Amino acid sequence: MAEAKVLSGAGLRGQVVGQTALSTVGQEGAGLTYRGYDVRELAEHAQFEEVAYLLFKGNLPTREQLNDYLNALMKLRELPLALKEVLERIPAQTHPMDVMRTGASMLGTLEPERDFSQQQAIADRLLAALPAIMCYWYRFSHEGKRIQCVTDEPSIAGHFLRLLHGKAPSELHRKVMNVSLILYAEHEFNASTFNGRVCASTLSDMYSCITGAIGTLRGPLHGGANEAAMAMIERFSSPQEAIEGTLGMLERKDKIMGFGHAIYKESDPRNEVIKVWSKRLAEEVGDTVLFPVSEAIDHTMWEQKKLFPNADFYHASAYHFMGIPTKLFTPIFACSRVTGWASHVFEQRANNRIIRPSAEYTGEAQRPYVPLEQR
Amino acid sequence: MAEAKVLSGAGLRGQVVGQTALSTVGQEGAGLTYRGYDVRELAEHAQFEEVAYLLFKGNLPTREQLNDYLNALMKLRELPLALKEVLERIPAQTHPMDVMRTGASMLGTLEPERDFSQQQAIADRLLAALPAIMCYWYRFSHEGKRIQCVTDEPSIAGHFLRLLHGKAPSELHRKVMNVSLILYAEHEFNASTFNGRVCASTLSDMYSCITGAIGTLRGPLHGGANEAAMAMIERFSSPQEAIEGTLGMLERKDKIMGFGHAIYKESDPRNEVIKVWSKRLAEEVGDTVLFPVSEAIDHTMWEQKKLFPNADFYHASAYHFMGIPTKLFTPIFACSRVTGWASHVFEQRANNRIIRPSAEYTGEAQRPYVPLEQR
Ligand SMILES: CC(C)(COP(=O)(O)OP(=O)(O)OC[C@H]1O[C@@H](n2cnc3c(N)ncnc32)[C@H](O)[C@@H]1OP(=O)(O)O)[C@@H](O)C(=O)NCCC(=O)NCCS
Ligand SMILES: CC(C)(COP(=O)(O)OP(=O)(O)OC[C@H]1O[C@@H](n2cnc3c(N)ncnc32)[C@H](O)[C@@H]1OP(=O)(O)O)[C@@H](O)C(=O)NCCC(=O)NCCS
Repeated sequence: MAEAKVLSGAGLRGQVVGQTALSTVGQEGAGLTYRGYDVRELAEHAQFEEVAYLLFKGNLPTREQLNDYLNALMKLRELPLALKEVLERIPAQTHPMDVMRTGASMLGTLEPERDFSQQQAIADRLLAALPAIMCYWYRFSHEGKRIQCVTDEPSIAGHFLRLLHGKAPSELHRKVMNVSLILYAEHEFNASTFNGRVCASTLSDMYSCITGAIGTLRGPLHGGANEAAMAMIERFSSPQEAIEGTLGMLERKDKIMGFGHAIYKESDPRNEVIKVWSKRLAEEVGDTVLFPVSEAIDHTMWEQKKLFPNADFYHASAYHFMGIPTKLFTPIFACSRVTGWASHVFEQRANNRIIRPSAEYTGEAQRPYVPLEQR
Repeated sequence: MAEAKVLSGAGLRGQVVGQTALSTVGQEGAGLTYRGYDVRELAEHAQFEEVAYLLFKGNLPTREQLNDYLNALMKLRELPLALKEVLERIPAQTHPMDVMRTGASMLGTLEPERDFSQQQAIADRLLAALPAIMCYWYRFSHEGKRIQCVTDEPSIAGHFLRLLHGKAPSELHRKVMNVSLILYAEHEFNASTFNGRVCASTLSDMYSCITGAIGTLRGPLHGGANEAAMAMIERFSSPQEAIEGTLGMLERKDKIMGFGHAIYKESDPRNEVIKVWSKRLAEEVGDTVLFPVSEAIDHTMWEQKKLFPNADFYHASAYHFMGIPTKLFTPIFACSRVTGWASHVFEQRANNRIIRPSAEYTGEAQRPYVPLEQR
């Protein structure tokens, strides 16, 4: 066996395992940058498709490039009939991340990546098709409706809201969804992205990488946290209840979903952005419970444990105020993060060695086989 | 950001990233052990289901335990109708690993893992169902037949061959397939297994872990090598041609599939086992080309580069002699390795921290956002 070094710390925390030019997480001065741009600036000024372009190609598009890209993505929204037929066979009670995983995988059987020269086209196809995969299944299984997968909304944010609600979204909702997709687009070597890179390192196809990443994002310690946060927030009907409930959970050593981070130590830069928008939406809908309850949990966590909300926490209430069913929260994350995942697959392929680590053996010493009859 | 250590070497080669009690790879005295047993002894004496039991539970079963396990697995072979309907919608030209990935994912929508207490049941279900997922699709798409997914073959080896060929296999073929499944069952932190563990570390469900692992195994640097080896071997009609062809490929710096290994440095213990069986099968079918061609490539690689055949190389001819279509080679690997994958998921869950490494940033320095109209 090759000389093995034992890494300090579980979960590869703080261990550099590769290179990326896509983002920085937790660097001084800016909590999160995409190709050098502060995510807060992007969230304020940019469209999500601009950010997708930036991640994929390395630079912000010109007006003409952006228009071309928006048009190209719009043409990639229809789902093949066979995929719709598959989605119709998935039960209503299925976890929507299982639907996304199966939908992405099925699309890979119908429109395979034949060689890596197609990688950008496949990434675009997935980016354009994932909202329809989610909404076609959701509305068929929950409402018995076979929706149109194509809309004339130019942005993915608007397109998704329109597919889900069957009507044009308000400007405010378009804006918040756009911001949300930007915040979730890319995050260095998080678990789902690293999962995708391990897959890419065997020179497998793009759909395999994205399918595995979706399955990884599904976990409650990762993307699943926004859903879990919502479930918790909804249990409380007042800030006072929320404070007591949070203290109780901390006493029982429960993990509070939507708090803490593997890399950020003091705050998550995505939180300050989405929190402002959640507040705007709370005002719009006249909420007097969910947002105050969220803030009460937030303050209690900081006071008690110096734990801060991550990207997921105020996303819960923001999505809720826009009428999005809780079970679709993590799938939206996937619709955005597919840009980061695919960009990492491009990087891994461009400078690849198969990712094959070693393990410390903690099992039985070598022992001779005992025939069945003698056991 | 947490203090980051830079790891020497790409691909995490030789880096210990976690613990396992399942296997050792490349330890002195035995090239490969499963829970302390030399894989060569297991391949000689055991049944694949015994090995599956060993990996899952930690010890070899008694006769009664094994019989119970065989019976339990036999009852888990039928596929749900909705899954068959999905398989019928996957085109004949699809890569069968895409079928396995989609089939495993779809099964997860129909029979989800509701909590981790079901993990053994889900692992058994996948182990029992994967051969039928592969063969139902294959025979429907290639022969237009809707096959029965249940057979009275007690072993998975016999069951698979029967599903594929529609008739009872010979004793020799049952034996060789059994050996092959044992050899492929488990291999420490290889890329697909590590991929599955990264997924498990977010506390995602078993189907997500296995779906991602299937997608990772698909790559030509990993499980896909047995198929690629076959394609190469078939190109040569004599040992002399094979020698010249191999020299040519080496000169062009092509990777020769089925050779080399990330951990083993001198030989792959699985090779000596499968090579003997491939030879037996060559004699049985009266082959005078494929096996001698394989040996010629083998000798040339050793002479020229000190590179040795890994598990995949003689698997190619062995499978071919049993009448297995080349495109199903990697899916068979998946039918076996699902035991190792699931066992690693159990281990990861039992002592988990989310696997979230860091990256070295090589991109643009921080830069201010430039509005669209000014680009
Ligand atoms: C994000 C997360 C997985 C990071 O994990 P990590 O880097 O392995 O950090 P740890 O779990 O070791 O956390 C360090 C300490 O803070 C505690 N902690 C971290 N997050 C916590 C939370 N959300 N609630 C309660 N305690 C928490 C841990 O229990 C641990 O305490 P200990 O040292 O007494 O054992 C973790 O914070 C978490 O599980 N958060 C909740 C899930 C979530 O929101 N995920 C989305 C991330 S964007
Ligand atoms: C298995 C494998 C991925 C291991 O990769 P790795 O640990 O990263 O090893 P490397 O690729 O760095 O190999 C070391 C050297 O041997 C060479 N080499 C390794 N395998 C080779 C092969 N199959 N054909 C030709 N050259 C090979 C490499 O080119 C490299 O040469 P260099 O140092 O001049 O660049 C690699 O051997 C390979 O690609 N083999 C073919 C695919 C295969 O059979 N996979 C199944 C594995 S069970």
